Amino acid sequence: MTDFVNNNCIVAISTPPGMGALAVIRLSGEGVFELVSSVFTKDLTTAKSHTIHYGFVKEGKETVDEVMISVFRAPKSFTTEDSVEISCHGSTYIQQRILELLIKKGAHLAKPGEFTMRAFLNGRIDLSQAEAVADLIASESTASHDLAIKQMRGGFSHEIEGLRQQLIEFAALIELELDFGEEDVEFANRADLKELVEKILRLVKNLMQSFHLGNVIKNGVTTVIVGRPNAGKSTLLNAFLNEERAIVSDIAGTTRDTIEEALNINGVLFKLIDTAGIRDAKDQIEALGVEKTKEKMRSSTLLLYVYDAGQLSLQEVEQDLQTIQSDNPIKVMVVANKIDALTEKQINEIPAEQYRVSAKTKTGVHEIKEALYHKVISNPEQMNTTIVTNLRHFEALQKTQSALQDVLNGMAINISSDLIAMDIRHALRHLGEITGSISTDDLLDNIFSNFCIGK
Amino acid sequence: MTDFVNNNCIVAISTPPGMGALAVIRLSGEGVFELVSSVFTKDLTTAKSHTIHYGFVKEGKETVDEVMISVFRAPKSFTTEDSVEISCHGSTYIQQRILELLIKKGAHLAKPGEFTMRAFLNGRIDLSQAEAVADLIASESTASHDLAIKQMRGGFSHEIEGLRQQLIEFAALIELELDFGEEDVEFANRADLKELVEKILRLVKNLMQSFHLGNVIKNGVTTVIVGRPNAGKSTLLNAFLNEERAIVSDIAGTTRDTIEEALNINGVLFKLIDTAGIRDAKDQIEALGVEKTKEKMRSSTLLLYVYDAGQLSLQEVEQDLQTIQSDNPIKVMVVANKIDALTEKQINEIPAEQYRVSAKTKTGVHEIKEALYHKVISNPEQMNTTIVTNLRHFEALQKTQSALQDVLNGMAINISSDLIAMDIRHALRHLGEITGSISTDDLLDNIFSNFCIGK
Repeated sequence: MTDFVNNNCIVAISTPPGMGALAVIRLSGEGVFELVSSVFTKDLTTAKSHTIHYGFVKEGKETVDEVMISVFRAPKSFTTEDSVEISCHGSTYIQQRILELLIKKGAHLAKPGEFTMRAFLNGRIDLSQAEAVADLIASESTASHDLAIKQMRGGFSHEIEGLRQQLIEFAALIELELDFGEEDVEFANRADLKELVEKILRLVKNLMQSFHLGNVIKNGVTTVIVGRPNAGKSTLLNAFLNEERAIVSDIAGTTRDTIEEALNINGVLFKLIDTAGIRDAKDQIEALGVEKTKEKMRSSTLLLYVYDAGQLSLQEVEQDLQTIQSDNPIKVMVVANKIDALTEKQINEIPAEQYRVSAKTKTGVHEIKEALYHKVISNPEQMNTTIVTNLRHFEALQKTQSALQDVLNGMAINISSDLIAMDIRHALRHLGEITGSISTDDLLDNIFSNFCIGK
Repeated sequence: MTDFVNNNCIVAISTPPGMGALAVIRLSGEGVFELVSSVFTKDLTTAKSHTIHYGFVKEGKETVDEVMISVFRAPKSFTTEDSVEISCHGSTYIQQRILELLIKKGAHLAKPGEFTMRAFLNGRIDLSQAEAVADLIASESTASHDLAIKQMRGGFSHEIEGLRQQLIEFAALIELELDFGEEDVEFANRADLKELVEKILRLVKNLMQSFHLGNVIKNGVTTVIVGRPNAGKSTLLNAFLNEERAIVSDIAGTTRDTIEEALNINGVLFKLIDTAGIRDAKDQIEALGVEKTKEKMRSSTLLLYVYDAGQLSLQEVEQDLQTIQSDNPIKVMVVANKIDALTEKQINEIPAEQYRVSAKTKTGVHEIKEALYHKVISNPEQMNTTIVTNLRHFEALQKTQSALQDVLNGMAINISSDLIAMDIRHALRHLGEITGSISTDDLLDNIFSNFCIGK
């Protein structure tokens, strides 16, 4: 980790890119106060921590901007190093200009996540907490936000570290046996070890099982809406969205040729894709054959099939569903729409597993939303347990599981202590990777390069 | 102005929209410390000005985010009111969540420019300085930035106020004459008044003349590049851009079907439009007939016509130029490209008014850039004088000019003092509108509604 352990002064624009009323440029590292003072109308070298200073950024005699500068002294800063935040006017020109000026004066442009990496390397947060910072910034819904906040505050780390400490104690005892070589002593009670490993295995499996849910909560549940023209797809979409104001209305990566809307149900984000946007086909079911539509369906978690219950026969509905499901193993919910135009007898003939809805009068809309939520969160209690949201953590848990299984298998056939010790060490290593107790340059580079610049 | 004069607590997200490492939410007004303390883990009501406080934003028992809060006490703040800045994690979700929480607690969502408007209404800055803040945020080049900084620091205001004060003295003397009614006294020396009015008129005219330049500096010089296929337009564009790194690489409003590049020449922003992007026509000169291309040419200030000097005859060039200029009264610069493939004799045959260039070897590229600059800034000294950049100021100057001309005309035919006094009052009113010494609700609403939110 030699190339990480330096604390030269780094700089980055930390606020979102683009123009705004103001922007914040963050600096951290050795000599930051001298460096910033050299372009500021006041001397910050003796300024107290957590104070704010008004003045002008100057390049030679020229005034670049009127700014407020915040001073943070080690170790009371995000990175635990001496740090400064410059709050300047939010023109892209000024932001770039000040950034370039600071680089000219000797600051290094920060790599993505470098501020957070320093907070980790300086021991202020562990790796899983650092990753939670990135998740927090990317969070788009209450549920993903809450998971990230929990993880940032150390919930997940504590659980993993607890398991790891117990396993370390056993490992120490087994390693001790190795020192006694041929003497055939057993410091580590095998029955206790087996019990512990089984307990950890159960927890690891639970955590792994939570990953699917975690992933869905973190990234949102992609839900595609299909149906023939005039089935009322758009009305249904509007009924969904109007009932409660969706906090997030723009989804990153939304392309021009698909309509994607964000719907927040009990804090879980659903990304609704209206396939009408994909192609303005006369017969939309036919359009499902189009590769683009198929692709959308394959990458979705749920599918809402909407039909006009006054127009289509159950046979036609069945045909449509077969077309849809022919090459998509997707969870389908069938919505019988426009029941406001039906008689009670007709409504009763709709199969029980279908949702009876009038998007127009909003009858049954709330029920579909609840059903969508429960397709994802089968038991709301789950939300209060530890949930794995990170693919890296999931993979580390998988490797831990495999190593622990090796321990159990080895013990079953009475293999030698040194082999058991090795498997335990593997398990420890993989658990350690989650919190960063064990880390490599590659691992760190990989994690922090996914951060945004300035964090 | 009754509806402006309140200092209830307002709130807005002040950093650019979108996701970043951090975002800043700004609050200002009465009770701001109590309001923010009600959702923060620390009590800020007794916090000192210009201090920073670490803690958590809470909604009930739930943690919303880990934040840093800056405290500014009246009158030492941007608005001169008690103010707070919350630096939170930059997820759009968290930004919205905290904003909504603060509104729930009683803060009012700030209108665009409302923070700056309060700074103006509370007397910290004048109107032209407030407008400079908006210009500063929108600035994309050194020159527009420098003009905005100058104006923000009061250069233009002082010039206008100086003229206004001199005129006010005369107005006072003439109004005094009116009090003496029929007595036919002259407190205000008519020769002195005429001299002063003429002097002010000259200054007003100079300022008005600077508006065209100011407008160009503020908004950039749109320059369209045309020429037949393989004339080397793209190579020329690349030669321009590679020579110096353009600070601004994205221009707002760039559409998918035109290629627009920003080129900074001596601090002036040129927006280069490559018409190859407009239509992939076989014969681009023919494509000039296309309405879209014509429109681009009409809205441009300069046109660079590029041709392959080894291929086209001077007659063909002349034809192209006639097509281009048929309905465009645009300044055209003719670039004879690919001179690297010509003999010295051939090069000498190129008409003197054309620019002899090899975009490939970069010969003559610097010269075109200098020529572009001098087409806009005929005298670089101009840049150091006061330049009007704002249409509102220009219009106020126009009205001032017209009122002052009325004063001179009236004096020439010896009209009565009360009519002269009225014309002087008109002139004073229009000058006063520039700095905001005289303002109306409509005027203020109009100006500040063009600001971005949070400023």
